[in-house]
Amino acid sequence: MGLSNIRPVLFQDGRLLILDQTQLPNKEDYRELKNADDVWQAIRQLQVRGAPAIGVAAAYGLYIALRDSKAGGIPEFLNSFRSVKTFLAGARPTAVNLQWALDRQESRLARYFAVHPDHDVLTGCDIGEITSVLLNEAEDIAREEEQASKAMGEYGLNLLKPGMGLLTHCNAGALAAIGYGTALAPIYLGQERGYSFKVFADETRPLLQGARLTAWELMNAGVDVTLICDNMASAAMKNGWIQAVLTGCDRMAANGDAANKIGTSGVAILANAYHIPFYIFVPTSTIDKNAMSGCDIPIELRDGEEIRSLWYSKPMAPEGVKTWNPAFDVTDHAYITAVITEKGIVYPPYDFHN
Amino acid sequence: MGLSNIRPVLFQDGRLLILDQTQLPNKEDYRELKNADDVWQAIRQLQVRGAPAIGVAAAYGLYIALRDSKAGGIPEFLNSFRSVKTFLAGARPTAVNLQWALDRQESRLARYFAVHPDHDVLTGCDIGEITSVLLNEAEDIAREEEQASKAMGEYGLNLLKPGMGLLTHCNAGALAAIGYGTALAPIYLGQERGYSFKVFADETRPLLQGARLTAWELMNAGVDVTLICDNMASAAMKNGWIQAVLTGCDRMAANGDAANKIGTSGVAILANAYHIPFYIFVPTSTIDKNAMSGCDIPIELRDGEEIRSLWYSKPMAPEGVKTWNPAFDVTDHAYITAVITEKGIVYPPYDFHN
Repeated sequence: MGLSNIRPVLFQDGRLLILDQTQLPNKEDYRELKNADDVWQAIRQLQVRGAPAIGVAAAYGLYIALRDSKAGGIPEFLNSFRSVKTFLAGARPTAVNLQWALDRQESRLARYFAVHPDHDVLTGCDIGEITSVLLNEAEDIAREEEQASKAMGEYGLNLLKPGMGLLTHCNAGALAAIGYGTALAPIYLGQERGYSFKVFADETRPLLQGARLTAWELMNAGVDVTLICDNMASAAMKNGWIQAVLTGCDRMAANGDAANKIGTSGVAILANAYHIPFYIFVPTSTIDKNAMSGCDIPIELRDGEEIRSLWYSKPMAPEGVKTWNPAFDVTDHAYITAVITEKGIVYPPYDFHN
Repeated sequence: MGLSNIRPVLFQDGRLLILDQTQLPNKEDYRELKNADDVWQAIRQLQVRGAPAIGVAAAYGLYIALRDSKAGGIPEFLNSFRSVKTFLAGARPTAVNLQWALDRQESRLARYFAVHPDHDVLTGCDIGEITSVLLNEAEDIAREEEQASKAMGEYGLNLLKPGMGLLTHCNAGALAAIGYGTALAPIYLGQERGYSFKVFADETRPLLQGARLTAWELMNAGVDVTLICDNMASAAMKNGWIQAVLTGCDRMAANGDAANKIGTSGVAILANAYHIPFYIFVPTSTIDKNAMSGCDIPIELRDGEEIRSLWYSKPMAPEGVKTWNPAFDVTDHAYITAVITEKGIVYPPYDFHN
């Protein structure tokens, strides 16, 4: 293992475990997800979050939801499969990896059935064989995400120099993915190689993924990290402390428009104004070729109580105040200096249609 | 009275009272400041805050600190005066109104002594007469700030149209000043006149002045206000919901660079990128002609626990994490569409040397 042995999603001894990220940094608590409901809730409530990690959790989720299926035949099994798939896909709308991983499972199953004869009656043994296909695919996805993380780390590191000040928003690290994460992968690799980066982590309101998760995992790895409020990024840039901005992505449209954690679009505009490169880390699993531009990406709206009272010892805004709480925003491709995927570094003009 | 009868600083029946803003929105609590220590603490801890309100509180503070002086002669009295003045001036470094109000008191006192003969021994009656000068000056300052608020409201309203969406950051309203505030003054005036503004209030981390104060006072006045996290301003602008940004100012340099609540510089850059005018409300008491540019404005750094644990039911960042917590940033004059003072609207190029 390297600097981080955090795994947001674990599958061991037949059990699907997730590190409950809503408890961090105060409690490091793995909980078992035993059925589709558990998986849906864990994704919905951000116990597991980050585009790649959500995809992996959902892929395993299909397996655990179906491994004890009592389906009497393949059509009945496929009905159950599709019903669980639709259910899980509805947990969160923006990160495309959720739908992508579920679709991969469906294709894998289709390939399996294409070469296996139908049975009139499925035995427990048959169900075991069919669902082992889902388990294998989930493991493939997890392995590929880990390889993608490593590759993005290497490509990303090519863009950076030792001693640089780096700003990141939300959490795109080991907790968001498998391995070293997406945007934080080059930071971990740099740490292994003595780059001595100075990282600034936006706290990322309202759910504080930067404070609770990014600061936590980078500190654990010995990285020099400074926590700031989101509204301090401009001042840090103005002070000359930031030489590059690195963020993850929840869904990239074909034209390079990028949905990511709320606030990312603002950070990108600031970086542009201060002539700082803005790099976005996007495993190809996060590219949605069906979205022509950011306009085609659904943006999740969440409960205003996350702004008004969550985490607080008492409400911090007047009772009944109107709120607007989008979980993501879209960064216009014009503000993105480069897109880093596991296949390489892509510069404008962006065209991910193929 | 108009839509708001909030007074952050009250002087009545010989008592200096402040509305303790750290308790809002959960408790509306006036507390008496009985001596210089109380005033210093109240300013330092942001129980009273906002550039004009701090100035007024400090001006009254000098009076209450000195009215029971036992000075035996004028030199001794002046020594006490200067010692209290220096002490209060150190409570917070950025808002120039604090120093400005204290300097006004010193000049007033100098004018008084210039026309009054020295006494060998000061009686209680003499002290009463001398300090009544300080009380009068504090009342003059409060009255002038109220008039300035009204004038800025009228000038500001000329820049706005009914139905506009307006974004504000921190609190520059009735709680920050005397009367309708600075940046919120045109919003209150518009409300009186049926303008139906749609106001978006940045919550303004870490001290949440937008959530706790701006949302509270605008809601109380019946204004349509929506609370957002600071990092949502970009998305609200992108959605076309914001037609103007209005903020207050804690100190403006002669070239128009403006220190205001941390995050203001970022909001101004976003407004510029989205082609939205950025208007800053600056009573002339807030202009520091001795500061050539923003580089000459000291920026207050505050305790990182405000980011890490304040307000929370438990710490929301890892124990021992490094933080950086500047209370203000400087908005470059290039991003300011117009400066609204009580004397009128000023457009670039800015030159406040005279």
